Amino acid sequence: MFNSIHEECGVFGIYSNKKTDVAASAYYALFALQHRGQESCGIAVNDDGVITCHKENGLVGDVFTPDKLAALGEGQIAVGHVRYGTSENKGIVNAQPMVINHVKGSMAIAHNGSLTNAAELRESLELNGSIFHSNSDTEVISYIITKERIGAPSIEAALFSAMYRLKGAYSLVIMSPTKLIAARDPMGFRPLCIGKKDDQIIFASETCALSTLGAEYVRDVQPGEIVIVDKNGMRSLDGHCGECKKSLCVFEYVYFARPDSRVEGASVHLARKKAGAFLAKRHPVDADVVIGVPDSGLDAAMGYAEESGVPYGLGFIKNKYIGRSFIQPTQAMRENDVRIKLNIVSSTVKDKRVVMIDDSIVRGTTCARIVKQLREAGAKEVHVRISAPPFLYPCYFGTDISSQDNLIANNHSVKEICDIIGADSLGFLDLDDVRHLTDAAPDTFCCACFDGKYPTEPPKKALDNKYNHKIND
Amino acid sequence: MFNSIHEECGVFGIYSNKKTDVAASAYYALFALQHRGQESCGIAVNDDGVITCHKENGLVGDVFTPDKLAALGEGQIAVGHVRYGTSENKGIVNAQPMVINHVKGSMAIAHNGSLTNAAELRESLELNGSIFHSNSDTEVISYIITKERIGAPSIEAALFSAMYRLKGAYSLVIMSPTKLIAARDPMGFRPLCIGKKDDQIIFASETCALSTLGAEYVRDVQPGEIVIVDKNGMRSLDGHCGECKKSLCVFEYVYFARPDSRVEGASVHLARKKAGAFLAKRHPVDADVVIGVPDSGLDAAMGYAEESGVPYGLGFIKNKYIGRSFIQPTQAMRENDVRIKLNIVSSTVKDKRVVMIDDSIVRGTTCARIVKQLREAGAKEVHVRISAPPFLYPCYFGTDISSQDNLIANNHSVKEICDIIGADSLGFLDLDDVRHLTDAAPDTFCCACFDGKYPTEPPKKALDNKYNHKIND
Amino acid sequence: MFNSIHEECGVFGIYSNKKTDVAASAYYALFALQHRGQESCGIAVNDDGVITCHKENGLVGDVFTPDKLAALGEGQIAVGHVRYGTSENKGIVNAQPMVINHVKGSMAIAHNGSLTNAAELRESLELNGSIFHSNSDTEVISYIITKERIGAPSIEAALFSAMYRLKGAYSLVIMSPTKLIAARDPMGFRPLCIGKKDDQIIFASETCALSTLGAEYVRDVQPGEIVIVDKNGMRSLDGHCGECKKSLCVFEYVYFARPDSRVEGASVHLARKKAGAFLAKRHPVDADVVIGVPDSGLDAAMGYAEESGVPYGLGFIKNKYIGRSFIQPTQAMRENDVRIKLNIVSSTVKDKRVVMIDDSIVRGTTCARIVKQLREAGAKEVHVRISAPPFLYPCYFGTDISSQDNLIANNHSVKEICDIIGADSLGFLDLDDVRHLTDAAPDTFCCACFDGKYPTEPPKKALDNKYNHKIND
Amino acid sequence: MFNSIHEECGVFGIYSNKKTDVAASAYYALFALQHRGQESCGIAVNDDGVITCHKENGLVGDVFTPDKLAALGEGQIAVGHVRYGTSENKGIVNAQPMVINHVKGSMAIAHNGSLTNAAELRESLELNGSIFHSNSDTEVISYIITKERIGAPSIEAALFSAMYRLKGAYSLVIMSPTKLIAARDPMGFRPLCIGKKDDQIIFASETCALSTLGAEYVRDVQPGEIVIVDKNGMRSLDGHCGECKKSLCVFEYVYFARPDSRVEGASVHLARKKAGAFLAKRHPVDADVVIGVPDSGLDAAMGYAEESGVPYGLGFIKNKYIGRSFIQPTQAMRENDVRIKLNIVSSTVKDKRVVMIDDSIVRGTTCARIVKQLREAGAKEVHVRISAPPFLYPCYFGTDISSQDNLIANNHSVKEICDIIGADSLGFLDLDDVRHLTDAAPDTFCCACFDGKYPTEPPKKALDNKYNHKIND
Repeated sequence: MFNSIHEECGVFGIYSNKKTDVAASAYYALFALQHRGQESCGIAVNDDGVITCHKENGLVGDVFTPDKLAALGEGQIAVGHVRYGTSENKGIVNAQPMVINHVKGSMAIAHNGSLTNAAELRESLELNGSIFHSNSDTEVISYIITKERIGAPSIEAALFSAMYRLKGAYSLVIMSPTKLIAARDPMGFRPLCIGKKDDQIIFASETCALSTLGAEYVRDVQPGEIVIVDKNGMRSLDGHCGECKKSLCVFEYVYFARPDSRVEGASVHLARKKAGAFLAKRHPVDADVVIGVPDSGLDAAMGYAEESGVPYGLGFIKNKYIGRSFIQPTQAMRENDVRIKLNIVSSTVKDKRVVMIDDSIVRGTTCARIVKQLREAGAKEVHVRISAPPFLYPCYFGTDISSQDNLIANNHSVKEICDIIGADSLGFLDLDDVRHLTDAAPDTFCCACFDGKYPTEPPKKALDNKYNHKIND
Repeated sequence: MFNSIHEECGVFGIYSNKKTDVAASAYYALFALQHRGQESCGIAVNDDGVITCHKENGLVGDVFTPDKLAALGEGQIAVGHVRYGTSENKGIVNAQPMVINHVKGSMAIAHNGSLTNAAELRESLELNGSIFHSNSDTEVISYIITKERIGAPSIEAALFSAMYRLKGAYSLVIMSPTKLIAARDPMGFRPLCIGKKDDQIIFASETCALSTLGAEYVRDVQPGEIVIVDKNGMRSLDGHCGECKKSLCVFEYVYFARPDSRVEGASVHLARKKAGAFLAKRHPVDADVVIGVPDSGLDAAMGYAEESGVPYGLGFIKNKYIGRSFIQPTQAMRENDVRIKLNIVSSTVKDKRVVMIDDSIVRGTTCARIVKQLREAGAKEVHVRISAPPFLYPCYFGTDISSQDNLIANNHSVKEICDIIGADSLGFLDLDDVRHLTDAAPDTFCCACFDGKYPTEPPKKALDNKYNHKIND
Repeated sequence: MFNSIHEECGVFGIYSNKKTDVAASAYYALFALQHRGQESCGIAVNDDGVITCHKENGLVGDVFTPDKLAALGEGQIAVGHVRYGTSENKGIVNAQPMVINHVKGSMAIAHNGSLTNAAELRESLELNGSIFHSNSDTEVISYIITKERIGAPSIEAALFSAMYRLKGAYSLVIMSPTKLIAARDPMGFRPLCIGKKDDQIIFASETCALSTLGAEYVRDVQPGEIVIVDKNGMRSLDGHCGECKKSLCVFEYVYFARPDSRVEGASVHLARKKAGAFLAKRHPVDADVVIGVPDSGLDAAMGYAEESGVPYGLGFIKNKYIGRSFIQPTQAMRENDVRIKLNIVSSTVKDKRVVMIDDSIVRGTTCARIVKQLREAGAKEVHVRISAPPFLYPCYFGTDISSQDNLIANNHSVKEICDIIGADSLGFLDLDDVRHLTDAAPDTFCCACFDGKYPTEPPKKALDNKYNHKIND
Repeated sequence: MFNSIHEECGVFGIYSNKKTDVAASAYYALFALQHRGQESCGIAVNDDGVITCHKENGLVGDVFTPDKLAALGEGQIAVGHVRYGTSENKGIVNAQPMVINHVKGSMAIAHNGSLTNAAELRESLELNGSIFHSNSDTEVISYIITKERIGAPSIEAALFSAMYRLKGAYSLVIMSPTKLIAARDPMGFRPLCIGKKDDQIIFASETCALSTLGAEYVRDVQPGEIVIVDKNGMRSLDGHCGECKKSLCVFEYVYFARPDSRVEGASVHLARKKAGAFLAKRHPVDADVVIGVPDSGLDAAMGYAEESGVPYGLGFIKNKYIGRSFIQPTQAMRENDVRIKLNIVSSTVKDKRVVMIDDSIVRGTTCARIVKQLREAGAKEVHVRISAPPFLYPCYFGTDISSQDNLIANNHSVKEICDIIGADSLGFLDLDDVRHLTDAAPDTFCCACFDGKYPTEPPKKALDNKYNHKIND
């Protein structure tokens, strides 16, 4: 399987007419986008065509020390990136933004998504003498753009040509010596929005980055659109728009995006509340309290409570001090019931019939443990509701839902899962309902991980073993 | 003012009949108690009388790397501590547990609270030749116990005698070569509970540490009680019990403790919901949604919603990636409206009349900013309710509410504060109501920071200038 | 000026017939080669064709923690690199070994030297669509080899073809999935030796790496030679040998190499002693003691003493604890005579006429200070002898002697320099003598930095401004 | 055995009439004294009576980052310390300077030496209620001084009284709010010198610290003397002088001190050369070259060469990059002849009869390995000369020569040792000669580790097991 490029990331770009602290803007924006990728992060700053970049494995707050942030200096343009990496591509060579120095001009590129023809493109490039330092799609994209750049009159023209060759999901933010450019694949798998603050134009994966900077949401980049910002202002190349049917990843609403973000204009928080309301209609139950598993189950729990009339309660305290350095309990301690990440508020659930909302069941073990804890804390009944349909199919468009084998829903019926997790009842979000979480047309979403209906052809070819080296740096 | 010993801490102790991984238990428990102190932390392990200790400035997850935790080894007894430090006593010499090696036996001591006669005790000790390495009360307590120990038949007898000399607030966990001992001052200012798991006895500042370890809550240590655990089991010395009127710090319910903890048997979450309910009764308002400022305003917001019938909503997203290494925005950026820590969920508040619950107003600036953001996000009205009475008096019993000058409530009426923060209305928790947050008798609380009625004499004497040195290590 | 690729590095490779701890061998060898480059270091290990690499900015002892070294695992082949970096190319993207993943097979490459046609090669590659991540020659070399590899039957055949296009100085160690290959440019600017230990073949910049591993010195790789090691043993491609006149950098003897190394079979220590002897003959003086400035002045001082009969003495103690973290004295302190790096052994120089040997005078300030200190310690006379001729010309073959402007010898006569440094007399090594430090033919050395006679054409073209971006990571 | 207090340290103090960067002076001085202790270091600065201290485990260059050094601020007085720690007392609680805050005034104290009655003093203090945080002598000394301080008119008077109770070796530098005080025990075991620079008075363990600061050597503190510096200048209390016979540790000349230091006015370098000359007289041999094992064998090798007429040569290169983070070779690699720390300069020894000078033979294994390497490098004969007599007795006065069992000389004759190390001949420095390394009277040295003649009674009492706890912080 073509595992290595499955990732979920956040991208950011800012253009200012005057030299200013664009690195700090990127820094704060990446904090807002951190939930989209915690493996590595980076910022590249453009000061009159001179690009300075710092990127490293780690969280934004760890990577950008005061020294490192200051070293980026001021500039007119910046791009930033946070990255989720799987075990196959953790190396820092895959960190972004990727900076390319070329006789036709430097370029920094930040990418969220996953190509479905990366292996073919790469093999063809290599057979023409190209060498690759990373195993990321971003380097493939960089090459394709650069090749086109040689004969093209401008970076945006090169990008426009390159988009004929790129298949799959990509939301790109590209910085040339004088321009900031955003582009989204013609199906619009991954989100990308446009903001404005005074004289600054901002691109970001989610609107929460705009709010953080006090910027105003303008609109989303359209599927297939190329938006260029330079000293002449903002303009658009829309020749690829409408080429394909729009296929926004519905999982952005269900899980990825932050509740305070709007994606394609729709509130993520409201979409999740609506998921809760759908659950309340499809899977009602007599109960005393509705609780959500933090953080992403909370919105749906409120929606379930509101729709059902069952009171909403604070069921869990999540320990906010657990970070990367946390030492996992040994197996012995785990069996001994160490419960460090999530604690029950027993006054909420004791002697109550509880509806518990979570966002997904992957292997079932975590859910089973929580149900057990609720019972030990005195819950009389535990009814589990999941604010998404069961995962049944791998995703090829930039998320990590890749292997069918580990997914409990592939091997068990809902009834069996209910028994495995020890719940009194279990309900998933309905496949029909998931397309109605917002007011958008139901056929404008990619729900392939739930229903297997891929909006475009899955990858034919996988990278073979010779690429299976590891680069740890 | 006697500033230096004002602090709020968390203590922990565990006794096992057999050699086991008591350090790991302490580690997970300190994670659960981390909210009580983020300045430094430490664990001391006792293996057959040999005490190994590691303590350092920093959070539990940073201080205890796998190496450091492993170096503590296994043992029968452990004590742990998390500490909040003011600028006057940040030095690592003040980190706890404090380990004392003495001809009469080693001792490790962890302390939460603040003595009111520390200066007198220290001066008298020094005039008899004692030397102090720290400026913490814990060292004073260690000396008093050690002095008594010389003529006493046992460590608990020494502690019993010492308690005649110690005035003020103290919850202690002490480890001798063979015993684990817990004690609380006769007024019971600070909490201390007893748990049990299989053959292990556990002491902790809050029950959330027990839940984390999967241990059962047994009872609280009583005001004035000394509880001793050794190979003969658990026993109690209650000669100091009933000496004074019980005066539990009500602020434990209002702010300090974790919502899933029970303090003196009462649920902190329910106490806070009750605070919200009281606010709804005393300060009702026509509104569309009730939102709480995370984290500690959430419980009261639920209580206000439940009592008033106004729906509860998710008003804010708190950025969970902001840690110690976060680089504060410059003044310029701050004025430019960078809002990194807290973002509004605008779909919740847009075009709504909003009741916003927070736990306190200290200087008013943070509250004013949040009100402004809510209005910018479209809130039609913003009614602020505070789930505590105004702070008016310094605390001498182990918290940091020390200086009257910075407190907005000392210089402004409620009406004025309402104008300053830009709210449509403002209501504080009533002074009567704060004594009724739990079922306990209203006169068993210390509410001195709100009403100035000190249950015991404030300190007479302050440490003078010669102690005003800094130790940074 | 073509500044960015001027560097001095150390390379290493090891081939074993069985899977073993080749990473540890590289680790110890890089310690022995550390003097050749302290900016970054890296090791790549090949286990049955799977290449694992770790490289980072920093010293070997800091970069390779036990975890990082262990993560490299065992293998049959390893290459290592230490790198000296100038300000222009400090970025970690320039760290080596460079690992290339290609449809025709992976490759790790370590390089010491500097191409004179790098700019032309790079421009031509870029105009054909290649993209570059670094500004190092190594990436240019990688490209050229890879391009040739597509049509070539083997990696060594590709390298052989590539060598027709590469101009300038290069000593390469290359690891393919199954082979270890070493090559030296046809003029043999930089050293590269072959060692043997049991079944292992080793390549290293200097023999001190062989001694460290307990390996036996076999011979040097010949100028123009390609040496291939695989499961069939070691073989040679010598088609480029004899193409050009041999031009070994004489500065390897004078300064770069470690005294216990042999370069092209000649002892570096003896070559430096010989420099001292030449100085004694050309610039004799009546004196009481000869002292050397540590570390590289010591050998020549012994040679001067032996030739002249003036006793050798211990003149200086060099503080061995000064590392990268050392805080430089402020200007005020420096003027206040803080002398932390070098202290005089006054019993050696007091009331003596002193001959002091150093390896070079760059700007004169350091030398002036030492002379002053010697006089303050009681030296009656200070006669300075320099164990190299004056630098007058930039080097284009892999060293950092690039700018003429800073060199005192370009602007001052020997007499003037003597006055500037405050010495009683001053003598440099003679231009004739520098070609006679070993038994090799005097015309087989490159002495261009001293005499301006470049053995091959200097670079015509420099990288222009668009490459002048900074990458800090 | 009384193991825990055996240590070797370096102390430093500086007094300035005006507020200045005394912390930086201490920083550079500690670099110069680093060879006397690498376990921990610390600096305390006194600014108008306010003492700020930073101390930590680690080397000066690692502990004092720019931030930490800056945080010490400016002041009038500073004391510094570097510490060698054995496994029993590595904890940071034992780091110095020790800062004491007392009703009679703060105090910082730095100590080099070892008390012989520490256990008795400590027990007596504890039985009167004192508590100890460390297991260092320094805390005992602090207590004794503090006890005396209560009734004494001044800190120096307290110190004078305290010295009646302290037995053994101590060189102290003490800082009170307004004074800097130095004192040496009446036998003068450990060195302590006085320097002067402009208006500043400086105390240091060795004169190399004075040279580093550009200060002038004034004289040594006399055995038994107390030297006080304050705004009235420098004065002396000499009432304890002459109480005992002077007993300077001869090992300061043989091994501890830096060659460029003068101890009691005598050059350490010359004393070591003299040791070499004595060896040449007592143990002559026909040879071709004399080489010294770096660093401390070099001086004696020069002395041997000068006396014998055999030429001095550079025999070894010591790898200067091996630091604390160096990963020790596995046993397998070690047997495989990895020689990372020390490499032979084979051109010096090949086909030669070699005299090799080292400073000591402890267990014989290191020496045997070096002899073997010399033979492999082609040495025809290897004659080993040791620039000290054999260690036969434990030291109780501040060094680490504590256990007789590991010392090869206790179990083997010189002939046997010669066979064990594989040398052609072996000679030690004669017991008579060691007292004649300088011009001082031969009976003014302590040579107890060589001849067992203790100048004062060894400790009677050892700390018993209850102190055997570990403190890791």
